[in-house]
Amino acid sequence: MKNIGILGSTGSIGTQTLDVVDLHEELNVVALSANTSVDKVFEQCIKYKPEIVAMMNDRAMEELKNKLDLAGESSIKVVCGMDGLIEVATLPSVDVLVTAVVGMIGLVPTVEAIKCHKTIALANKETLVTAGEIIMPLAKAQGVKILPVDSEHSAIYQSIGNTPYSKIEKVILTASGGPFRGRTMDELVKVKLKDALKHPNWDMGAKITIDSSTMMNKGLEVIEAKWLFDVEPDQIDVVVHPQSILHSMVQYIDGSCIGQMGLPDMKLPIQFALFEEARESMPYERLNLAKLGQLTFEEPDMENFRCLKLAYKVLKLGKEIPTVLNAANEKAVELFLKEQISYLDIPLIIEESISEYLASVYNESEELTIDLILETEKWTYKYISERWQA
Amino acid sequence: MKNIGILGSTGSIGTQTLDVVDLHEELNVVALSANTSVDKVFEQCIKYKPEIVAMMNDRAMEELKNKLDLAGESSIKVVCGMDGLIEVATLPSVDVLVTAVVGMIGLVPTVEAIKCHKTIALANKETLVTAGEIIMPLAKAQGVKILPVDSEHSAIYQSIGNTPYSKIEKVILTASGGPFRGRTMDELVKVKLKDALKHPNWDMGAKITIDSSTMMNKGLEVIEAKWLFDVEPDQIDVVVHPQSILHSMVQYIDGSCIGQMGLPDMKLPIQFALFEEARESMPYERLNLAKLGQLTFEEPDMENFRCLKLAYKVLKLGKEIPTVLNAANEKAVELFLKEQISYLDIPLIIEESISEYLASVYNESEELTIDLILETEKWTYKYISERWQA
Repeated sequence: MKNIGILGSTGSIGTQTLDVVDLHEELNVVALSANTSVDKVFEQCIKYKPEIVAMMNDRAMEELKNKLDLAGESSIKVVCGMDGLIEVATLPSVDVLVTAVVGMIGLVPTVEAIKCHKTIALANKETLVTAGEIIMPLAKAQGVKILPVDSEHSAIYQSIGNTPYSKIEKVILTASGGPFRGRTMDELVKVKLKDALKHPNWDMGAKITIDSSTMMNKGLEVIEAKWLFDVEPDQIDVVVHPQSILHSMVQYIDGSCIGQMGLPDMKLPIQFALFEEARESMPYERLNLAKLGQLTFEEPDMENFRCLKLAYKVLKLGKEIPTVLNAANEKAVELFLKEQISYLDIPLIIEESISEYLASVYNESEELTIDLILETEKWTYKYISERWQA
Repeated sequence: MKNIGILGSTGSIGTQTLDVVDLHEELNVVALSANTSVDKVFEQCIKYKPEIVAMMNDRAMEELKNKLDLAGESSIKVVCGMDGLIEVATLPSVDVLVTAVVGMIGLVPTVEAIKCHKTIALANKETLVTAGEIIMPLAKAQGVKILPVDSEHSAIYQSIGNTPYSKIEKVILTASGGPFRGRTMDELVKVKLKDALKHPNWDMGAKITIDSSTMMNKGLEVIEAKWLFDVEPDQIDVVVHPQSILHSMVQYIDGSCIGQMGLPDMKLPIQFALFEEARESMPYERLNLAKLGQLTFEEPDMENFRCLKLAYKVLKLGKEIPTVLNAANEKAVELFLKEQISYLDIPLIIEESISEYLASVYNESEELTIDLILETEKWTYKYISERWQA
């Protein structure tokens, strides 16, 4: 029996994690966390009977408590806020913690879970993008596995198996290229919100769909790959592969490439992480290459899709600069989703934020800490809101 | 330092093995064997200074001895015949034995090498096609690794890593489809020898090039795959992939497919086997998927390319029937290379030999032994030569 805790159980990865749990009697849900979706998390409580649930705030906590009391489930402990999230993340019975919350809120609970030797099924991008330099040595020191829960890094992880990372020549991330693949700058100028929200292969949340269209999603994955697989920026390549069948691959020092393929379905990397790298059966449709006919590949267009180039840039700079990129992108996408800025303002805002941070705030001698990361995020939010918001 | 013995050092795999040895100071050649190419093996002796060399017959042995004496290399022991091959295969200093001889002659030396705990870098197809049922349990009992040296099985081996074979749902062998891919029976009737000797992607010997054109090569690989990866016939799929970039893959019980890719070059699987699965550097050109643009896949045509279908049939029958298929194919290709039969006579002769063997010789209660395999080969040769040769 494996006991699972889920930070962010009502989101896309959270609910798909529960779909995987439904497939296997040996998986058991002991802890959940949600933002404010009380009804949804209440249903999950009735079905999975966790020991504890964390909600974002007092109000959601009280509302859930009342519903559980009425349903005769008052033995489920309900907590809230950051302390609540940490309580969920460090619950003694949790074996594998799925960190599926979005945003920087996942950082501190993940650190605490690592300190308590929980296996981390990592679906929170911010963790490694902003704090890989802190997280990876900590996980290594604690002997904790960080198992990536996204199709690309999981593909590389699955491909590497037991091979030492020192044998890696390159990791090659595939990218669908998003809905605007092949468009010129003149065409990208005209992109509207509704166009950007259509992703050709994956059904995901709005933020990540926009990130996929700008290729920032791939940029963030490039940064994560550096930390997950202990490689340098020039050892990470991106190749555009519109069919999203080859989910990524590793190239070794002998030139051999090992890649993972499959129909696009997040439940596979989720399950691989939940079982801590053991293969267990899954009932979904299989890949049939002959039926598919062809897989195509092309170079990414880093001139027109500047977000990817910016990600490589901040990765080389290191320290808290990836945090500026991430926070600026978050804010810029938020403004775009509210239709307050245009599509091409997204890379513009990010680039400007990085330049401004480097010019006026950055102190090369300051050590990277979780506090510095959180401060940097705040600075970036403030800078953008003062400069770009009405 | 790893000491290498090579059975068949002057053939295609043998010489490429020596190319790999040239790349690495930690690889050392201690034993060679050749058929009758005295000049070629003499040069290898001068360069690699092995302890021992086996030649096919007395005459070649004496010729080589004389040349070595004249060159002041009389300390290199020269032997001949099956006893000589066995002496090479079981030489105490050999760590890894590359079995690159063609034909049934490789069988007994391989068995003896396994008994002496040599790691086997297996390039001799007949070993597993005819005797997989004997070889694999023997290797397991002796704790000996059988490392496949062909691009397809090596690809699967590389893809599996440490995953238990019980987690395999399917192994999926890729096939170039050969020069006659897509042709109808009416078109295949007209195939001439010179057409069949042109292979689109790989530069190989004549026999294997014909086998590739009839897809018998893939059929033999299907049989080998059963023994190497402990799977049933219906767990082995073939998919045609004309570019020969995805060299094969494994599909696990969760649906995830792991495959190995690279530019077509036999030196990669050879090196992977010589280093007993360790990745070491290799200086050749790297795969560039974006430059390549596309990979295509299609179902194999088992109606017009009957050899592949026959291979599945004999695999299900088991015992010595794959030996009939292999020996009949060997003989039929020989006749085709001498232009004594037509292209479509190849599957015809094989099918007829199998039917005749089953009808008039096969004894279901007889246990499979190396002797039975050798007798079955002799029967098949005799049957074909009486029935088909002038």
